[in-house]
Amino acid sequence: MKEKLEFKLMDKLRADCPLVHNMTNYVTVNDCANALLAIGGSPIMADDEDECAEITAISKALVINIGTLNKRTIASMIKSGKRANELGIPVVFDPVGAGASALRNQTTKDILEQVQIAVLRGNLSELSYIAGLSASTKGVDVSEEDKNRDAVTIGKKVAKQYHTVVAITGKEDVVTDGEDAFLLSNGVSELSKVTGTGCMTSAMLGAFVASASADDAYDSIDAAALAISAMSIAGEISFEKYAQMGTGSFHIGIIDALSKMTAEILEDRIHYEKD
Amino acid sequence: MKEKLEFKLMDKLRADCPLVHNMTNYVTVNDCANALLAIGGSPIMADDEDECAEITAISKALVINIGTLNKRTIASMIKSGKRANELGIPVVFDPVGAGASALRNQTTKDILEQVQIAVLRGNLSELSYIAGLSASTKGVDVSEEDKNRDAVTIGKKVAKQYHTVVAITGKEDVVTDGEDAFLLSNGVSELSKVTGTGCMTSAMLGAFVASASADDAYDSIDAAALAISAMSIAGEISFEKYAQMGTGSFHIGIIDALSKMTAEILEDRIHYEKD
Amino acid sequence: MKEKLEFKLMDKLRADCPLVHNMTNYVTVNDCANALLAIGGSPIMADDEDECAEITAISKALVINIGTLNKRTIASMIKSGKRANELGIPVVFDPVGAGASALRNQTTKDILEQVQIAVLRGNLSELSYIAGLSASTKGVDVSEEDKNRDAVTIGKKVAKQYHTVVAITGKEDVVTDGEDAFLLSNGVSELSKVTGTGCMTSAMLGAFVASASADDAYDSIDAAALAISAMSIAGEISFEKYAQMGTGSFHIGIIDALSKMTAEILEDRIHYEKD
Repeated sequence: MKEKLEFKLMDKLRADCPLVHNMTNYVTVNDCANALLAIGGSPIMADDEDECAEITAISKALVINIGTLNKRTIASMIKSGKRANELGIPVVFDPVGAGASALRNQTTKDILEQVQIAVLRGNLSELSYIAGLSASTKGVDVSEEDKNRDAVTIGKKVAKQYHTVVAITGKEDVVTDGEDAFLLSNGVSELSKVTGTGCMTSAMLGAFVASASADDAYDSIDAAALAISAMSIAGEISFEKYAQMGTGSFHIGIIDALSKMTAEILEDRIHYEKD
Repeated sequence: MKEKLEFKLMDKLRADCPLVHNMTNYVTVNDCANALLAIGGSPIMADDEDECAEITAISKALVINIGTLNKRTIASMIKSGKRANELGIPVVFDPVGAGASALRNQTTKDILEQVQIAVLRGNLSELSYIAGLSASTKGVDVSEEDKNRDAVTIGKKVAKQYHTVVAITGKEDVVTDGEDAFLLSNGVSELSKVTGTGCMTSAMLGAFVASASADDAYDSIDAAALAISAMSIAGEISFEKYAQMGTGSFHIGIIDALSKMTAEILEDRIHYEKD
Repeated sequence: MKEKLEFKLMDKLRADCPLVHNMTNYVTVNDCANALLAIGGSPIMADDEDECAEITAISKALVINIGTLNKRTIASMIKSGKRANELGIPVVFDPVGAGASALRNQTTKDILEQVQIAVLRGNLSELSYIAGLSASTKGVDVSEEDKNRDAVTIGKKVAKQYHTVVAITGKEDVVTDGEDAFLLSNGVSELSKVTGTGCMTSAMLGAFVASASADDAYDSIDAAALAISAMSIAGEISFEKYAQMGTGSFHIGIIDALSKMTAEILEDRIHYEKD
């Protein structure tokens, strides 16, 4: 039974500076790279089928994000995912828009079936869709009244089904390995007014999980919780400074705050509880 | 006869928060998403032929921008455009670089012939090229002395030819449905020192036209004029603050100002006249 | 024998406002466009094989960057490169990640063999890999103790082999045409905490080399040294202002400083010596 999060993982990440291979979308890729650098990782992007597995092999984590999916890169994603599995390199999967189109649904299914995921991070809609994939005959209903309760249920179900850690981000965030679950409640609603804060969280998660996987003192729950908290707390810090200026300054302030993030800031500001 | 613009459309957009499907270029796509969020819309990007029409179908407007055209996405653009037409979803077309290459010319022609456009937005060179498409034997000459006069003539001609609203942005901007024409004269020349201010305008136009199309109080002229003015006035506001700092800060200041834009600011600062 | 750099090239670039065709990666392309605009050039991006050579033909320089290489655009890069050579348009090549995958290695080799490059800009790893391409049987060893010395040796070797100017950026930068070599030592280490500062340097190099190639008073060594110094000095200026705020503000401050860069600032702040 895991009772608390390990914040020193933040320091370890900065010491490790892990190379993270990102197969992501062209909308938020620049922010993903800069968020990764800000938190102490090192980004590399490559998506051609003829080189992706080689790039994965020199990296410490792989992040797959289907935000602007196209058929050219689906095969690359699966190829890199399989190579990562062979080499014991952890894989983060962000199923952006799962549920919104047949192509995304099929790709999500293919990736989950063919690649062992270390951390699956998405919003409640995406995770509900995935939970439905493993349901027998009916979809998963999310009651408006009790979304947080449902998020834990859905998260645990998907975590068990795919033997992975699941992180569901929203007003409250849930991180669970199927047994233990943690609820996180930092952040500001304005984070949804900047594109890519979810993608950036997944990119940073790659760096956290790379560092966690190399040390028995940490696990993927710590990695997911710290990546999510880094973004939520950076949002709070930036909002305190820049709310009155507008979302352009708020966006830049998030990267600023990520670049100054420490284990102490995380531990001092985080609000979390064991479920 | 339309005599004046309806500024309350700005409030309606913020209330509606319309989902806008953008098929755009990879240079300015992040700014397009953030400008859309700042003005009160919600962006979605998808360009694979196997999912684009599904994404269009759940959206309130479609924006097609050929800034970094490639053959993979041309078919997607036309497919989404046709689907939007079937469903009565308004389509904005930004023919970036029309006239500069055979591929862009042919694609512009194909889109205009196969998709009914609600608003066509470009600069004078692009619209002059398009006007020439529908001329019988000779090109369109733009006299240096009277570009504004020509912009109205060209705009009206193209608007009539394609049964669309045309917006030509430049030092002065023209918005016309072929009968009525409005001249707008806000903005600062430094807007051309930040890449993508035109693309962002087209992306926001998607949100304005989505809101306008759902209410008889507004039309596509209002949508085009308000999107253009939002960018021009945001440019003025940012320039007042950041001119001495440089174009990086000016860029961020534009997004800031868009996120604080209101009907009152637009109505207070706009300079426009009926032609 | 060239003894000193010609800083007035900075003024000439701003007067010329050269159109620069960039075939680059989707991670840093927005920053490349904004850096080019900030330094006084004009960016255009196009990578489809059916239009790239036409776009090259209307440009004053071509910049090829293989940062997110994919098979679709390799043929385009070579086609545009050959067209540039036919028309006497200078070509800048940034072999991002050369040495890291077979695809990048083969593409680097193909481009160097089929396109005459005006300036080849990369880091020491990339240039070491390229130097090894032309070695007979063994790789190139870079001793930790004397990287700067090696950078000059490697730079001169590659410059002679490919009849080009080579720029190797790092803690110190080397620019050489194979005979003369200059060492530059501006910059701050935090430049590596913002993605794309190398890509932006290559993009600006396109503008500098366009202006240099049109006037016998300047050569490609001036172009490369000024582009590198513009980025290094912009980094210093931004760091003085924004170090305590974080890497988001530092990033914006770089673009700000580039947009205010003058021949006087460059000449006043540059540290360089003839090798």
